Amino acid sequence: MSKLSSQGIKMMKYRIEIVVRRKSGVADPEGNTINDALRRLGHNEVSSVRVAKLFDIFVKSDDAFKARDAAVKIAQEVLVNPVIENFEILDIEEVQ
Amino acid sequence: MSKLSSQGIKMMKYRIEIVVRRKSGVADPEGNTINDALRRLGHNEVSSVRVAKLFDIFVKSDDAFKARDAAVKIAQEVLVNPVIENFEILDIEEVQ
Repeated sequence: MSKLSSQGIKMMKYRIEIVVRRKSGVADPEGNTINDALRRLGHNEVSSVRVAKLFDIFVKSDDAFKARDAAVKIAQEVLVNPVIENFEILDIEEVQ
Repeated sequence: MSKLSSQGIKMMKYRIEIVVRRKSGVADPEGNTINDALRRLGHNEVSSVRVAKLFDIFVKSDDAFKARDAAVKIAQEVLVNPVIENFEILDIEEVQ
């Protein structure tokens, strides 16, 4: 989405994809539950399951780098528990 | 992980990354809650948030294609509600 802000700067809209994963060694009860269910269903080829969260944050900005910085700040402030999780920006794209 | 099965076939271990997203148009209460929280914290640059799940399935197989097929079956049987969600295989890699 491209439009002019009140200062006359052309504003774009970006989709920033952030993945939040448990750090290795941190227990994953949801993953373990799915793993157990799969074994009961006969999927003995599965050895383990880990679950992570994927966030698509839609940010208005005049610049992709500023949009990325905003998303990193949001991840650190709101999305991630740094004691047990880490995050990664997977993708940034301009959207309509 | 590479070892011989009881039939003498070399078994490998694969990590298959599957993303499960709500279909477009399906309400995302968790994403909306995060969006509201971000607005209250002053992140007015955010226009919306969508949340998805990312599964790392670790599968033992003698072949990457068979491992992929097993993961697709697992997604269809257990991970995805086809009424409101769809899924995508993001990545397959051989792991130790």
